[in-house]
Amino acid sequence: MNNNQFVTELSDINTNFAQWYTDVILKTDMVDYGPVKGTMVIKPYGYAIWENIQAYLNDKFKKLGVQNAYFPMFIPESYLKKEAEHVEGFAPEVAVVTYAGGEELNEKLIIRPTSETIICDMYSKWIKSYRDLPVKMNQWCNVVRWEKTTRPFLRTSEFLWQEGHTVQSCPEDAETDTQVMLKVYSDCLKDLMAIPTLTGRKTEKEKFAGAVATYGMEAIMKDGKCLQAGTTHNLGQNFAKASNIKFLNKDGELEYGYSTSWGVSTRLIGALVMVHGDERGLRMPPNIAPIQAVIIPIASKVSGVIEKCNEVKTLLETANMRVKLDDSNNTPGWKFNEYEMKGVPLRIEIGPRDIEAGVATVVRRDTHEKSTLHLNNIANEVADMLAKIQANMLKQAQENLNNAIVETDDYNTMVEQVNNKKVALCYHCGDMTCEEEIKNNTTIKTRVIHSYDTTHKCIYCNKPSKYRVYFGKQY
Amino acid sequence: MNNNQFVTELSDINTNFAQWYTDVILKTDMVDYGPVKGTMVIKPYGYAIWENIQAYLNDKFKKLGVQNAYFPMFIPESYLKKEAEHVEGFAPEVAVVTYAGGEELNEKLIIRPTSETIICDMYSKWIKSYRDLPVKMNQWCNVVRWEKTTRPFLRTSEFLWQEGHTVQSCPEDAETDTQVMLKVYSDCLKDLMAIPTLTGRKTEKEKFAGAVATYGMEAIMKDGKCLQAGTTHNLGQNFAKASNIKFLNKDGELEYGYSTSWGVSTRLIGALVMVHGDERGLRMPPNIAPIQAVIIPIASKVSGVIEKCNEVKTLLETANMRVKLDDSNNTPGWKFNEYEMKGVPLRIEIGPRDIEAGVATVVRRDTHEKSTLHLNNIANEVADMLAKIQANMLKQAQENLNNAIVETDDYNTMVEQVNNKKVALCYHCGDMTCEEEIKNNTTIKTRVIHSYDTTHKCIYCNKPSKYRVYFGKQY
Repeated sequence: MNNNQFVTELSDINTNFAQWYTDVILKTDMVDYGPVKGTMVIKPYGYAIWENIQAYLNDKFKKLGVQNAYFPMFIPESYLKKEAEHVEGFAPEVAVVTYAGGEELNEKLIIRPTSETIICDMYSKWIKSYRDLPVKMNQWCNVVRWEKTTRPFLRTSEFLWQEGHTVQSCPEDAETDTQVMLKVYSDCLKDLMAIPTLTGRKTEKEKFAGAVATYGMEAIMKDGKCLQAGTTHNLGQNFAKASNIKFLNKDGELEYGYSTSWGVSTRLIGALVMVHGDERGLRMPPNIAPIQAVIIPIASKVSGVIEKCNEVKTLLETANMRVKLDDSNNTPGWKFNEYEMKGVPLRIEIGPRDIEAGVATVVRRDTHEKSTLHLNNIANEVADMLAKIQANMLKQAQENLNNAIVETDDYNTMVEQVNNKKVALCYHCGDMTCEEEIKNNTTIKTRVIHSYDTTHKCIYCNKPSKYRVYFGKQY
Repeated sequence: MNNNQFVTELSDINTNFAQWYTDVILKTDMVDYGPVKGTMVIKPYGYAIWENIQAYLNDKFKKLGVQNAYFPMFIPESYLKKEAEHVEGFAPEVAVVTYAGGEELNEKLIIRPTSETIICDMYSKWIKSYRDLPVKMNQWCNVVRWEKTTRPFLRTSEFLWQEGHTVQSCPEDAETDTQVMLKVYSDCLKDLMAIPTLTGRKTEKEKFAGAVATYGMEAIMKDGKCLQAGTTHNLGQNFAKASNIKFLNKDGELEYGYSTSWGVSTRLIGALVMVHGDERGLRMPPNIAPIQAVIIPIASKVSGVIEKCNEVKTLLETANMRVKLDDSNNTPGWKFNEYEMKGVPLRIEIGPRDIEAGVATVVRRDTHEKSTLHLNNIANEVADMLAKIQANMLKQAQENLNNAIVETDDYNTMVEQVNNKKVALCYHCGDMTCEEEIKNNTTIKTRVIHSYDTTHKCIYCNKPSKYRVYFGKQY
């Protein structure tokens, strides 16, 4: 839905990051607000990013033996209550259907905030023997968590995600699933989205409601805040016991299964915006960009220009690149601005002088560098340049991540640094009450555990340390 | 989730088609019942069919300039009421969220039974000028229609579908969208699923609530009943007026847009089962089969057998075929039965004697014919055979369709034939009251209009005919 107005300015990214974020996602047609408070419409330019994430993950899942399936959205209220910690964690934010088909329902239906309870219930019907294990299923679906404060992609009442659920016959294999999937996620962010992450186990206080252990993947935004970009949960036998998933093991004994769950959501799109964006708008890493290169004709009415643009488009598409030719009546200047704001990694300008010289003029979105490529080798040279852009954007993001981390043993320094857009790596005792006090005093939470270390002192209470952990502000 | 029991028998397809259907979809692990009445779990073997449909349609949509997006599931109650016929059509079957986040909501939220109202509302914000048109978006999502009588895939409280929504600047282009999409759907059924269909306009009585014209695509099941497999709707300006979608046309005047919508759902999976299945179970056309060929080792402990099976698997996969090697401990006989019931188009047996002779023994699911293929050219020969199976299954289904249709000018004959597993092609006056009376007397409804013809008499009331229309019983 282009309209022919000249692009409006964005808010300043350095002084008003929150408003910059809202401006850029709305103005680039990634998203709009839905009519119900807290909901979003994911527009095609945003949804295409999600589809690229889906394609990447589906491929990885398949290679790991995970099969896609679909489970009902409606969960009987009684199911959610099966696992004590789980219901406590989710009850405050569920949406509830109380009547349907013109009648009040006998049992209220919860719209899934996550599907552990219903999937484990089905698994309990299907799993009888160790020969049925492992079970590895995934679903792509919508979930609902009624949030007070919402922002498109980052926190919305309804969002899209994938949730994988496995059952294994021993705790070790469940732990392996949990860690393998964390690696799949962090590879996805790194290789597809050029986003480096901090990965590790979450503290007891921050783990998923009902899990034995939760692992998290944290991406650091340009304002220094952390965004939990994905989690994997080792559920131990907790949900198996709640749902009665029992299998006959090799010794002929009935045993509860060992389950895991893991998910990433459309908030990854928000991470993409906030890790790579700059004062001019979005910057899309080529591997995930809905449009990898935009071709803009210069002096398009001169004979041969549009033809050459179309020829280049076909060559790039044949080489599996995602290309757009903008042959609209807007001026080249308008188009430069538009696709810069949309973050298209490479702009290809083709005019009469370029054609005469046998070249195309290209401008990189990541460095703003202008150069020329040979028309007679254009597909190869564009592919090379996209690979360079991808690598450079990962390098830039890695530098930002490295620069964001400070190591300190002093509590006041930690608080000061985190309030100053940093992530602090500190020793902590692992005590939930201690962690809670820090949070209550500062709104600062632990992100993921860096490493286990009992030779130091807790940054807050001075008791012996249990681990080093990242502290940060969060989205 | 295999378990090592020998396959249980299915109900007889000829004398108890309904029970055969339920047996086959449950026993082949396509689906299971969800805990909430009327819901279903789509298991991996069923979901893979849906994914193949998605891939086919996404490709076609993209070529037609349709972009995927995602709109919220929650529709404010007031939205549904905007279009008078629409609310009347859907009000009885909606599910309603009345509280969320621990609080009663000010306005009740309808879970989308279809998204015209919310999508048109968003379109009214986005569309300003003829330059913004056409808009063509599609979403893959779940929808909820609370039904009294449900059957997996065919009619469930929650189901998956795609719904496309376009807005055009003139009525002709909206009509074109409506008809082009009907062709996309019927091509999908024919080319991918080997299902021939009857396509045409629905009568005024049977059209979509709020549409100017609805077109339908009817597939004929093995029991002679019709299944509405997809519909496309020309909504005229009805929803544009209800949602205030106005654009400045080329003459500088404000005009309401012309919208369309079109969808197919997971009920297509039910159609696949009921068009192709036989007394032994499913029969999957190769183009949509989750597993196109299954390799079964014979005397698998003999040296070289498993190695050869793996080699063939790799060759077929490299040639982009979907292949399974079943090297489990089950007997070959058990496996033959299992994959026959699952409808795998081609079974490839490889044993020591085959290897010695340089061949694989293959058995077609469609004809039960046994033959041998050359191991040194296996990928090409399997691909050829799959193409033959696909063509033969379409031919068989087309013959069944042709045989199901009877032409008659006599009302009693029509009723008798339709009750006897036929679809009747008859003249009708086009009067809604007349059509209603037929339905009330017989439960027989019109399916789609075959052709317009005013030179005959209505089969029921003897008034001049308006068209020839198919009468049938429906799923």
